[in-house]
Amino acid sequence: MTAAARMHTAPPVQASRLSVMNFLNEVGADFPQAISFASGRPTAEFFRLDDWLAAIPRYTDYFARQLGVQTRDASALLAQYGRTAGIINELVAAQLARDEGLQCAPDQVLITAGCQEALALCLSALCTEPGDVVLARNPTYIGVTGVADLAGIELVPLTGGAGSDWSGSLRATVAALQAQGRRARALYLIPEFDNPTGSVMPAADRVEVLRFCAEQRIVILEDNPYGMFRFEGRRLPSLAAQDRCGTVIYLGTYSKTLCPAVRIGCAVLPGTLFGDAAAARALYANLSERKSFITVNTSQLNQALVGGVLLDQQLSLAELTRAPLQHYRRNRDVLVGELDRAFGDLRPQVHWNCPQGGFFLSLTLPFEFGQRDVLCCAESYQVIPMPMQFFALDGSCKNQIRLAFSNLTTDAIATGISRFARFVRERLRQPIATGTLS
Amino acid sequence: MTAAARMHTAPPVQASRLSVMNFLNEVGADFPQAISFASGRPTAEFFRLDDWLAAIPRYTDYFARQLGVQTRDASALLAQYGRTAGIINELVAAQLARDEGLQCAPDQVLITAGCQEALALCLSALCTEPGDVVLARNPTYIGVTGVADLAGIELVPLTGGAGSDWSGSLRATVAALQAQGRRARALYLIPEFDNPTGSVMPAADRVEVLRFCAEQRIVILEDNPYGMFRFEGRRLPSLAAQDRCGTVIYLGTYSKTLCPAVRIGCAVLPGTLFGDAAAARALYANLSERKSFITVNTSQLNQALVGGVLLDQQLSLAELTRAPLQHYRRNRDVLVGELDRAFGDLRPQVHWNCPQGGFFLSLTLPFEFGQRDVLCCAESYQVIPMPMQFFALDGSCKNQIRLAFSNLTTDAIATGISRFARFVRERLRQPIATGTLS
Repeated sequence: MTAAARMHTAPPVQASRLSVMNFLNEVGADFPQAISFASGRPTAEFFRLDDWLAAIPRYTDYFARQLGVQTRDASALLAQYGRTAGIINELVAAQLARDEGLQCAPDQVLITAGCQEALALCLSALCTEPGDVVLARNPTYIGVTGVADLAGIELVPLTGGAGSDWSGSLRATVAALQAQGRRARALYLIPEFDNPTGSVMPAADRVEVLRFCAEQRIVILEDNPYGMFRFEGRRLPSLAAQDRCGTVIYLGTYSKTLCPAVRIGCAVLPGTLFGDAAAARALYANLSERKSFITVNTSQLNQALVGGVLLDQQLSLAELTRAPLQHYRRNRDVLVGELDRAFGDLRPQVHWNCPQGGFFLSLTLPFEFGQRDVLCCAESYQVIPMPMQFFALDGSCKNQIRLAFSNLTTDAIATGISRFARFVRERLRQPIATGTLS
Repeated sequence: MTAAARMHTAPPVQASRLSVMNFLNEVGADFPQAISFASGRPTAEFFRLDDWLAAIPRYTDYFARQLGVQTRDASALLAQYGRTAGIINELVAAQLARDEGLQCAPDQVLITAGCQEALALCLSALCTEPGDVVLARNPTYIGVTGVADLAGIELVPLTGGAGSDWSGSLRATVAALQAQGRRARALYLIPEFDNPTGSVMPAADRVEVLRFCAEQRIVILEDNPYGMFRFEGRRLPSLAAQDRCGTVIYLGTYSKTLCPAVRIGCAVLPGTLFGDAAAARALYANLSERKSFITVNTSQLNQALVGGVLLDQQLSLAELTRAPLQHYRRNRDVLVGELDRAFGDLRPQVHWNCPQGGFFLSLTLPFEFGQRDVLCCAESYQVIPMPMQFFALDGSCKNQIRLAFSNLTTDAIATGISRFARFVRERLRQPIATGTLS
C-alpha cells in the first residue's frame, strides 16, 4: 500500500507519533524522485570509514598499554564482552574537554549504543514514580517523544510564557504540575541549533534555566548533536560546562561528527546530583545496570574505532569536522538565498530563521501544512518538506515546516525550494486554502 | 569498597537480581588470582577479528549489487543511518536455514544490537496489559530476569509438575494464572544447552510444549545462543523449525559463533501469529518502532562485518565453529573427568550432569551455597563457582552451582576443581554447615 492509499483508508485522527516516521519513510519510498528536506542525516561526503577502521589498531595498542598486556591479548579482550559503561570513557572525556569545554572524569561518562540509548536510559531511570514527567520545548525532537511514549512517561510542553520567555514558561509549567501533585523530573533541551527549529538558546536563558532547575531539582538533559557545526558567531558555553550544582546530564554522539554507523553516543553525568556525590554515583550505576539488560555493552569494535580516531586526532574533532562544517554552512547559505529569492516578496506572510549552525531551518507559512500537504508536495511538486506539527507535543505549529539542509547538494536545495515555492504560490491563489483541512 | 565489605555493610536481605551481576564482577575484580567458573564468555582463542574486518568489503560489494549502485555509494550508505530492521536479513535467514533448519523469509528477521535487545523488545511488545506475565523455566537466564524487572513485567516460574514434567507444569501454571485473571503472554526457553543448567529439552517435550502454547496462544521465545556447540548425540530440531502454528519467536546471536564485540543478534518472527499473518506483520512493525526509539538501527558497520563473514563462509557457520566446538568439548571432558576424580566417592551426595553441548554444567551439593560461600571460596580457596540460586526465580536451587567451562584452559579447570573440592570437603567436615546461613 502506498502512503497515499494508507492515508486515505486510515481513520482521520491525528497520526500517532510512532507512525509519523513510518509515514515519512513511505512518502520518500513512494516518490523517490522528490527532493526531500525531511531527513536530517549528516552528509556522507566526508565519511572516511576505511580510514577510521584503519585507526582501530591505534586504539588496541593504547588499550594494551592501559591494561599492561600484549597487543594480541588486548585484541582478544576487545572482541570479548566488556565493561557495560564502556572502555573509551577517558578519551571521550578528553575530547569533550577540548572541543566543548566540558570538564568531567572518565567515570562520569557512560558509553552507549548511540545517543538515543542514553536518552532512553535517562528517561526511564529518572521517571520511576507515577506523576513523574519530563519537560520539553515545543516542538521537540521526535526521538524524545517516541521513547517517552514507549516508556509511558508524559512529556509536558513548556507553556505559560511567551515563546522565548524561558523563565516564565518554566515557572508556570512547574507550578501547574506541582499543583496537580506531579513532579517534573527532567527537562530535555537541544540548546545549540535545536532539532527541529534550528534555534540557539540565548546565554542569559541558559543561566536562568540552570539556576531554576538546580533550585527545583529538575535534571537537565542537554542533547548536543550539532554543537561542532557552528557557522558564525561566538560559541556559547553548554549548560553542562556552566553547571556548578549537579543539574545537567550531557548527551553526546559521534553520529554527526564521524558517521551514524559507529552507533556510539554517551551520557555524561554531573559529579554530584544537586550536591550529592553518592546520588550521582548511584544514578550512574543505575543507568549501567539498565543498559546491561538492554544492550549488554556497547560494541567494543565500534568503541575501538572511535577511540582510534580520537587518538589520531589528538583528542579533538575540530580538524575532522572542518570540511563538513563548510558544507553545512554553504548549504545554509544557499537555502537562505533561495528562500529570499523565492519568498522575499511574500514577507512577512512567509518568514524563516537563519540558523547559526546545525542541520535545520524553520519556515512559517500563511496557511496550515500537514500530512495531506506533504503528500500533495511529493506527488505533484516532487518536493518533501517536513510539517513542524509532527514535532509538536500539543498539535500546535500547524503553519510551520522544518527544512533539513544537511544532506542535499546545493543544486537540489535550489531546485527543491523553487518547487516548493510553486506549491506555496498556487496554494495562495486558491480561494480557500485547503491546507486548513489537513 | 570491596565486595566483602559491601556485603558486610549491606542489609541482610536477598540481593536484588540487578545487583547479583555487579557482586560477581566485584568478586572477580577483588580476587583476580581466583579461577572463575562464573563467566559464560566464549573462548577468545578463535576470535579472528582482523579477518572478519577484512570481510566488510565483500558485504559492501554485495550491498552495492543489491541496491544497483556503485561500491563507493554503497559504502557511504553503509556508514549512514539505515533501515531499523537491518540490512543483512536475507543473509541471516539463509544461515539459519542452513545451520538450524529454520525456514524464514528475510522480512521475518529483525536485526538487533545483540540478542539481549531482541529479548527486551519482545518482552515489552508482548506484555502491554496489567496482568500480562512471562513464563520461564526455573532457574533461568539472568538476562531475561533483569529485563523483566526493568520493564515491570512479572516472570513466573513453571511449577506444579515434577522437574521434567513439562506438560503438567505448564498446564498447572497457566491454569493458576487464568484463575487469578492474569495472562501468560510468552514462555522463555533455551532448549539447547540451557543457561544456567546445561540441559537439553527432550524432543517429546518440545512437541508437547509447542502444541500447548499454540492452543493457549502463548508466544514461545526460543533463545538459542549455544545451538552450534553440540558435542555428541543427534541434533534436535528447534521449536521454531517445528512450529506450524505461528507460536515461536526465535532469538539468535553471533556473540558466541563469531564474537561478542560484533553485538549482532536477531529475532525471527513466525510467518503468522497463531494463524494471523497480519498480526505477525503488526508485531514485526511494533518491534521495529520500539527499536527505533532505543537504538535507532543496529550498527551497519557491524552488520557488514557479519554479512561479509556469512558470504565468505557460504552462509554457514559450521566450518568457523569447528575449532571452538572442539575446545568446548575438550573442556567439558576435562571438567567431567576432574569432577569424577574429585567427587566420585561423594556420589550421590554430590552429583552433576554431563552436558551434551554448550558452556555450562550444573552440580548439586549436600549443603547450601550462596553469596557468602562464593566470597569464602574466592578469598580462601581462590576459586569462584556460581551459586545457582542467583538464577532462581523463587529462592530455590540453594544447593546447586553452575560451572561455566567455556572460557578456561584445561589446566585452570583441573586446578579450579581441586581447589573447589578442598572447600567442599572442609565444609563437610564442619559440624554445622555454615553454608546454610547464606
